[in-house]
Amino acid sequence: MFDLNKSQITNLFEFHEAVERIRHAYIASAEGNVQTANVGHLGFPDANGDCHIKSGHIEGTASYVIKIASGFYNNPSVGLPTSNGMMLAFSAQTGETLAILRDEGWLTDMRTAIGGALATRALARADATRVLIVGAGIQARLQATCLAQLMPERALEFHIWGRNASAAKVAATELNDLGLTVQIASNLDAEVGAADIIVTTTTATAPLFADGLVRNGTHVTAIGADSPGKQELPTDLVGSASLRVCDMARQSLEHGEFQSSKRADASLEAVELGHILSGARTGRTSDDDITVVDLTGIAAQDIAITQAIIDAAASTNA
Amino acid sequence: MFDLNKSQITNLFEFHEAVERIRHAYIASAEGNVQTANVGHLGFPDANGDCHIKSGHIEGTASYVIKIASGFYNNPSVGLPTSNGMMLAFSAQTGETLAILRDEGWLTDMRTAIGGALATRALARADATRVLIVGAGIQARLQATCLAQLMPERALEFHIWGRNASAAKVAATELNDLGLTVQIASNLDAEVGAADIIVTTTTATAPLFADGLVRNGTHVTAIGADSPGKQELPTDLVGSASLRVCDMARQSLEHGEFQSSKRADASLEAVELGHILSGARTGRTSDDDITVVDLTGIAAQDIAITQAIIDAAASTNA
Repeated sequence: MFDLNKSQITNLFEFHEAVERIRHAYIASAEGNVQTANVGHLGFPDANGDCHIKSGHIEGTASYVIKIASGFYNNPSVGLPTSNGMMLAFSAQTGETLAILRDEGWLTDMRTAIGGALATRALARADATRVLIVGAGIQARLQATCLAQLMPERALEFHIWGRNASAAKVAATELNDLGLTVQIASNLDAEVGAADIIVTTTTATAPLFADGLVRNGTHVTAIGADSPGKQELPTDLVGSASLRVCDMARQSLEHGEFQSSKRADASLEAVELGHILSGARTGRTSDDDITVVDLTGIAAQDIAITQAIIDAAASTNA
Repeated sequence: MFDLNKSQITNLFEFHEAVERIRHAYIASAEGNVQTANVGHLGFPDANGDCHIKSGHIEGTASYVIKIASGFYNNPSVGLPTSNGMMLAFSAQTGETLAILRDEGWLTDMRTAIGGALATRALARADATRVLIVGAGIQARLQATCLAQLMPERALEFHIWGRNASAAKVAATELNDLGLTVQIASNLDAEVGAADIIVTTTTATAPLFADGLVRNGTHVTAIGADSPGKQELPTDLVGSASLRVCDMARQSLEHGEFQSSKRADASLEAVELGHILSGARTGRTSDDDITVVDLTGIAAQDIAITQAIIDAAASTNA
C-alpha cells in the first residue's frame, strides 16, 4: 500500500506517461468502458464549503479510484488552501487498498490541464502558434506548460489575459521563468481576434467576450464551466462552430459550457473527445473551421493519473 | 491527522461512549439534522465484488465522514477477508483530513450491533430475559455481547440458532467464554415461540420462520435485510405488529425488512428509532405488544462511531 504526500506524488509524476494514460482513458470513456458511480455531494453553507466524491473504474484495469475533493472558500482568510482531498485506489480484484494519494488537489489540476492540452493538440490547426490563455490562476499556468510540453516542435507564443491584471502579470512572469514565450494581453477582444488557439480557464458565469470576434480557423478549449450556470464562451460561437467536442456529452450539454447553446438549440450535439483521439470520429476538416472543446472533467482522468502514480511508485520500490 | 489501523481503533474504542454517540445520531437523523450524500456504488462482477461509498454530516458536529466499504466474495478462497474499506473524517469547517481509520469493516459491524442493542433495550419488555439470536456470524455474536453490555442489570439468557449447526456451536462457545449464558438452539420454531427477544442477523431472502409463532409481548429486532429482495421475518408478523420501528423509514419500507409488508399494505408505516430514543414517540404500550424493529444501517451511525474514535485518539494524544 502506498501512502504518498503531495511532494512524493509530484516527484513520481511523469508527464508523458500521464498524457498517454489520460489519452487512453478518454477513449475508454467514449467507448463505454468506464464505470462511474453516482457523484456524492455534501454542502457546508455555514463554512462556505462543499465536498464532491467521484469514483470509477476503467474496464480491464487493476484498480478502482475514489476521489474526495473539497473546496472551503473562506480558508485563505485563515491561511489555509481552499482545496483539500485525496485520491484513493483499491484493487478491482480484491478490494484491498492500493494507495492513498494526499495530493491536495494537484492531480486534479494536472489531469485537467493534460485533458485541455490533448484536446487542443488534436483540434488546432497544424500551423497554430499564437495561444491566448484567458484567466490567470493555477489552471491558466498549467494549460500553458502542458501545451508547451505536448507540442515541443512548435514555437508557441502565449498571450495571457486576466480580469485581475496584476495576477496576469505574476502568471506571465512565472511562465517566462519556465522558458515559455509569454506576453501579457491587455485588450481581450483584440487578442481573441488574433489568436490561433484560445484556452479559457475562468469561473465565469457569462461569456468572456462577444460573438463574432473569433476568426475562422481558430480552436477554442473551454475548461472553466463545470456546473449549471457557468459559461465562458458566447452561446452563438458554440452553436455555430464547425465542430463541438466534449469529454462527456451528457455533462457538457447539461451542466458544462454547452448548456446555454443546448437551451438555444435542443438538437445541439457534441462529439466526445475519446472518439477524436481514437480516430473513430473526424476532427478538424479545414483550416477555416472554428473548433470548440468543452471539458467538464471526468472520473476516467482521475483513475488514469492515479494509476500512473501507483505504477511509478511500484517500479521505484521494485 | 490520525491514521489508525484496526488494532489501534479497537484499543481506543469505548463501548458506552459509542452507544451514547450513536443514540444521539439516531435522534439527529429522525429530526432531520443529518445530511447524507448519494450513495456511490461500483460493481465488479468478474471478481464477484462491489464497493459502496456512503457519506454524511450531523449538523453542528466538527467533521463529516466518508465510508468506503467493499465486499469481494471470492477473497476467502485466496485467504483474504471478504470485507475491506475505511472510514475517513474531514473537518466540516475547513475540509482538512482529520482521520483515516483503516478499520477493515470493524466499525460498521460494531455500530450495527450497537444500533440493534439500543433498539432492543428501548422496546423489549422490562422483564425480558430470554434472547433468541438467529444466525451465527459476526453480527450474531456482536448483537449478543452488545446487548449484555447494554443491559447488565438483567440476567440475559441467550439461545443461538444457526442454519449451520456447527457454526452456531462455535459462536455459543465463544460467547460462553466471554461470560455470557448461552445455549445452542436446535428447534427454531420452538425457540421463536419461547423467546422474549428475537434478534435476526442473517442474509435470508425469505422468512426464517412461519407467521403465528411469535407470542404476545415479544420484541423482534431484524438486522439482516438491507437491500431489495432480503427478508428475515414473516410478512404478516410485520404487518400485524403493535409497533414497527426502523432507523430510516424510506430505507426500511423500500429495501429493508418492511418492503414485503409495504407491498402487501401500501399504507404501512413505521416510526423512526430516533423518535423513540428521544421520547418524541411512544414505544411499547403494553406487556402484550409485539414490537418489531428493522435496522438497515444509516450514515449517522458511521459518523457517530468515527467521531468517537477521533475524540478518543485526540484525548489520548493530549
